[in-house]
Amino acid sequence: MVAALLGIDWGTSNRRAWLVGAGGVCLRRYADEEGALAARGRYAASLQALCRAMQVADGTPIVMSGAIGSAQGWQEVAYLDCSVPLERLPQSLVPLRDGPAACFLVPGYCQLAGGEADVMRGEETQLLGALALGHGDGWYVLPGTHSKWVLLGDGCVRHLVSYLTGELFALLRQGGTLAPLMMGGHSGQGLLAGALRATQKPVLTQALFAARARAVAGLADPQQTYSYVSGLLVGTEFAARPQMDKHCLQLLGAPELCATYASVGAALGFNCSWIDAAQAHCAALGRFLEQM
Amino acid sequence: MVAALLGIDWGTSNRRAWLVGAGGVCLRRYADEEGALAARGRYAASLQALCRAMQVADGTPIVMSGAIGSAQGWQEVAYLDCSVPLERLPQSLVPLRDGPAACFLVPGYCQLAGGEADVMRGEETQLLGALALGHGDGWYVLPGTHSKWVLLGDGCVRHLVSYLTGELFALLRQGGTLAPLMMGGHSGQGLLAGALRATQKPVLTQALFAARARAVAGLADPQQTYSYVSGLLVGTEFAARPQMDKHCLQLLGAPELCATYASVGAALGFNCSWIDAAQAHCAALGRFLEQM
Repeated sequence: MVAALLGIDWGTSNRRAWLVGAGGVCLRRYADEEGALAARGRYAASLQALCRAMQVADGTPIVMSGAIGSAQGWQEVAYLDCSVPLERLPQSLVPLRDGPAACFLVPGYCQLAGGEADVMRGEETQLLGALALGHGDGWYVLPGTHSKWVLLGDGCVRHLVSYLTGELFALLRQGGTLAPLMMGGHSGQGLLAGALRATQKPVLTQALFAARARAVAGLADPQQTYSYVSGLLVGTEFAARPQMDKHCLQLLGAPELCATYASVGAALGFNCSWIDAAQAHCAALGRFLEQM
Repeated sequence: MVAALLGIDWGTSNRRAWLVGAGGVCLRRYADEEGALAARGRYAASLQALCRAMQVADGTPIVMSGAIGSAQGWQEVAYLDCSVPLERLPQSLVPLRDGPAACFLVPGYCQLAGGEADVMRGEETQLLGALALGHGDGWYVLPGTHSKWVLLGDGCVRHLVSYLTGELFALLRQGGTLAPLMMGGHSGQGLLAGALRATQKPVLTQALFAARARAVAGLADPQQTYSYVSGLLVGTEFAARPQMDKHCLQLLGAPELCATYASVGAALGFNCSWIDAAQAHCAALGRFLEQM
């Protein structure tokens, strides 16, 4: 029986780690910006530094999720088919070939439907955690760089849709004609206006141009543009929601992102609950620990 | 009677200029990257340098279109209402207050409808030029950073829709997760696949995520991603086309952009003709010259 396990959510641009004991109880936590891109070519040394920083005992098993298992990461791990239940993830871990002993990668999921593909890598661990925390089947929304809407049925991924929401928002803030207008702070009114615009299902490139035009033409306060664009992009996800019996869903992510999604969801008639992603990740690590 | 006129299409990030004689015959042309942003705070000196470079005689009238007349430009010029015919633009020029004599700005148009705004600044000069060249009412598409679909009726702007197409494409190429896949060159097959995907009217942020997922999952050649994204964004404009009797439209822009739009249009059943934007601009300058 192993006493503790180190879990790393190793994404493209940053990573978070938790040392957990039985039941997924968090013993120590850690975060830095040494994502899979930054650590490229020196993954072993980077992992060693993280273990030192967290004072992880030699021989502690390590489980890594996220982009670290992609083609651009340390070792590419094949996606699981969506017919594999999340509860089978502990038996589906893939040993790392070129690293310390007892080091594993969590496989993501790939959904192929209608000639189109959708994928997740990292979110599967959070979803397993949600189940471990006692949440059941239903709709989950995981906001982020690539926001995901996931329907769980019988503990399996039944439906997966990803949106470039967070990434697109960041690109629009960094450069281009909207960026100078997106310096304003949060505005509840702007967020709501953007969300309501999204329910009209406009062509997104048209609505994004108009986000500036409406400020230029004096129809809206330019200071609200930041939140208007946020509401437009997040609202687009809600407006495109797959068929669901009740407008009831679980938000699973970082608190600040969940707050934005909950506001937009509430305005559009959704009943959103909310699970902290870090807590879910630790609960999943508890499941992995049981198998060690 | 004035013998020549200098016209400047002075955009946000670059400018093009033509010295024209009677009938809009081009006598000299010029282009540089001293857009309205770069020239900020020293517009008069920047204009003087352009005139020297083009050997423009003192006292030659100057007509400037584009972002130079915006709130971020040299002097803000109020938008015209869409009820003003394009042929009235020569009588609607606005004298520059703080510059050389006989220097004018062309006002753009603003369309207010359904609580939303759409605007153009610079394109009105090209559209006047298209009319001057003998083209009539109907649908015009002006591809670019902010692509515009314009319906002319009785020589007036009856309908205006702008899309952030070119700007979004540039942002996606510059940064984010799609950028590394957008290094490939032009692919006719990729362009067509993206255009066909657009006809299904997917949520754009979902289709953009899937543009990477389909390559990662082996459903498409990653080398085609550049053209696939181009086809998706341009195809989105065609798929959202306003009601039109015939699928017949005039492309008005730079040749390389018109070629991409013509390919996508042809694939989606549109009959596209094509007018060179520089030629149209010169024809409009001929009209301005007549009024001097």
